[in-house]
Amino acid sequence: MSGARHITLPEGFLAAGVHCGIKTSRQEDLAVIVGEGRLAAALMTTRNQVVGAPVLWCRRVLPRGFGWIRGIVINSGCSNVCTGRRGQRDAEAMAALTARLIGAAKEEMLVASTGIIGQPLPMARVRRGIRSAVAALGRGDDGPVVRAIMTTDTREKSAVVQVRLRGGDVTVAGIVKGAGMIAPHLGCLGPAGRGSGGGGATMIAVLTTDAAIAPRALAGVFKPAVRGSFNAVTIDSDESTSDTAVVMASGRAAQPIRAGSAGLRKFAAALAEVCRELAMAMARDGEGATKLIVIRVSGARSGADAEAAAKAVANSPLFKCAVHGGDPNWGRIVMAVGKSPAKVVPARLRVRIGNVTVFARGRGVKFDLRAAEEHLAGETVTVSVDLGLGKATYTAYTCDLSANYVRINADYHT
Amino acid sequence: MSGARHITLPEGFLAAGVHCGIKTSRQEDLAVIVGEGRLAAALMTTRNQVVGAPVLWCRRVLPRGFGWIRGIVINSGCSNVCTGRRGQRDAEAMAALTARLIGAAKEEMLVASTGIIGQPLPMARVRRGIRSAVAALGRGDDGPVVRAIMTTDTREKSAVVQVRLRGGDVTVAGIVKGAGMIAPHLGCLGPAGRGSGGGGATMIAVLTTDAAIAPRALAGVFKPAVRGSFNAVTIDSDESTSDTAVVMASGRAAQPIRAGSAGLRKFAAALAEVCRELAMAMARDGEGATKLIVIRVSGARSGADAEAAAKAVANSPLFKCAVHGGDPNWGRIVMAVGKSPAKVVPARLRVRIGNVTVFARGRGVKFDLRAAEEHLAGETVTVSVDLGLGKATYTAYTCDLSANYVRINADYHT
Repeated sequence: MSGARHITLPEGFLAAGVHCGIKTSRQEDLAVIVGEGRLAAALMTTRNQVVGAPVLWCRRVLPRGFGWIRGIVINSGCSNVCTGRRGQRDAEAMAALTARLIGAAKEEMLVASTGIIGQPLPMARVRRGIRSAVAALGRGDDGPVVRAIMTTDTREKSAVVQVRLRGGDVTVAGIVKGAGMIAPHLGCLGPAGRGSGGGGATMIAVLTTDAAIAPRALAGVFKPAVRGSFNAVTIDSDESTSDTAVVMASGRAAQPIRAGSAGLRKFAAALAEVCRELAMAMARDGEGATKLIVIRVSGARSGADAEAAAKAVANSPLFKCAVHGGDPNWGRIVMAVGKSPAKVVPARLRVRIGNVTVFARGRGVKFDLRAAEEHLAGETVTVSVDLGLGKATYTAYTCDLSANYVRINADYHT
Repeated sequence: MSGARHITLPEGFLAAGVHCGIKTSRQEDLAVIVGEGRLAAALMTTRNQVVGAPVLWCRRVLPRGFGWIRGIVINSGCSNVCTGRRGQRDAEAMAALTARLIGAAKEEMLVASTGIIGQPLPMARVRRGIRSAVAALGRGDDGPVVRAIMTTDTREKSAVVQVRLRGGDVTVAGIVKGAGMIAPHLGCLGPAGRGSGGGGATMIAVLTTDAAIAPRALAGVFKPAVRGSFNAVTIDSDESTSDTAVVMASGRAAQPIRAGSAGLRKFAAALAEVCRELAMAMARDGEGATKLIVIRVSGARSGADAEAAAKAVANSPLFKCAVHGGDPNWGRIVMAVGKSPAKVVPARLRVRIGNVTVFARGRGVKFDLRAAEEHLAGETVTVSVDLGLGKATYTAYTCDLSANYVRINADYHT
């Protein structure tokens, strides 16, 4: 792919992706994304109690989850987790070198890593990669940038939304990687991790915008956007030690976005839309996946109930195998909802696959099997569960479970 | 297999298993296990909020979870869930016919069903099966009995333990089925289910003993035995709508077992041992499984923490794929422990695969890769996780995740 442009579409950003030999393949494995000037930033990281060195570094850079930075350096092929003090020094060195080369302080540079666990970063290569990437910084083709953060991903995942505010257009762009060990539960401050820890595949999302917005306000709209998108994805229920999502704003758009303004609401909607598109792309590209599954729960007594019911279905291996097999097996949907901590009254429950109602009033209903199977044969499967007990809703994103998922993860060797 | 005897080894029981045509295969699909006289019984059923008609019937027979009964009738091939009022009538009819034929009241007869969901029981065949089974009641070959409760199980699973009490020997025997949709969370009284619900594969355990013990005391020792065994198993994290475990005591042993006695403690240990053996056999025979995985957590701050950490590892698809691939991927173990609600301090954490320490003091340690791989190549894999924070322990049982699991569950059609 050539000429793909997304992450540098908003004014004020430069990026580059290079191959420096961390991955054994010839694919790009190191990316640098920086601002021409300082950037307002909001950060969310994994809530796993075991975290990698790069996550610890990011929390040092932005201890409150937001602030001013200059950019981020990311590598794939090695996650720099379970690497002890050396790993922490390496993460810091990545930040320091990148910062020095662009004329910034290391405390202004975030770091994210994804890939193999328990091995130290090949720092000579990493340093060479950082130098090449900084030398190549530009805007024009962001393909190498997104490829440089991919591991088992099969597709380049990006999204761009433009929104018209009073003072002119604002652009929000984003890229994401993540295919396995994906059940993000991003928070502003996870439990303070000590030392380093296990990891592997991971989600990394980087969003850029030219919006003129203060870091605290940016964090205020990023949090709900992440909750409804990345945190609503589960590929395999396994929350990585390295999940990282960051949004950076260059402030190049004419009009500042003020707290409480209509502009902020519009911007928040655009940011949420980009996060949701990336989240859906991530679920669709789950390891071994052949389709995206969208689980919509409505009628829950509370938001927590709605989320619990949706996640129970999205994490059910039996349900996901049934979808893979094209089988409208509503019994597994009802089982999953019933085992969840959400309040469920079978007689009130209603389940639809696509537009086909398959379960109502406590029992299966006669339904158009062919219509349900046709829906399941498509690239996007929608399951709607109405709990019939309240007004709360939640949408979760997942994918089918295939024999390929097992192959990918049984063959991947430490 | 001929002449296998287990469930009727304790004095006072008769059993039979027959083929009556509920299953499409020629395998047995209906079993009756009854006492020659009345039986003290303790019952535990799924805590899924959606439950099948047979579970509802059992709760009607033993509303407090224990009492006097005469036996149980079980079928495979059709779970009688999501079958509405008709399903409830059918479950009751199974109890009524079996009871009448042995000269008991229907309120003394438990019912359990496992198999396909949402279809009514073929009651003409079921009635014929019950008649044949009652006519065949005896003791000698219990093979047909255990085969009659199997679905995707590949092995007949039974266990027998004898224990010497002051008044003479007591025998505890048991059979179990369960291969998929297995993450039992058996309780004495689940939430009151209304109507029927989804289901499918399921665990059903029937234990028999000649012990002379009152129903309440029996329930008192059954509960902890189930907690440490069946409830410690997870094959695929999916809790069935039909899980049922029952222990029945004929009282034929000479000496009554009194509350608080040394005899009760010995009997409790024997009962726990049978449950544990059955639980391990069930995990080993999980759908697509090639090995049993035992997760031992120690050093937890609380029992709840120990269980949460063990179950997080046991339910991690990534970990289970790694074991399937023979890969000592401790990163996935550490990830799973870290994402659990259990308190974890990476620097305190210690992980062993077999006898090989692979992680300590917050990072991977150099280890004998061949020794770890040899352990993983065996039929039983043990993972020990010491949280280093307290004294609580928990052991969970699971199996590896193979491409066959996906095939079995993607090809199974509603």
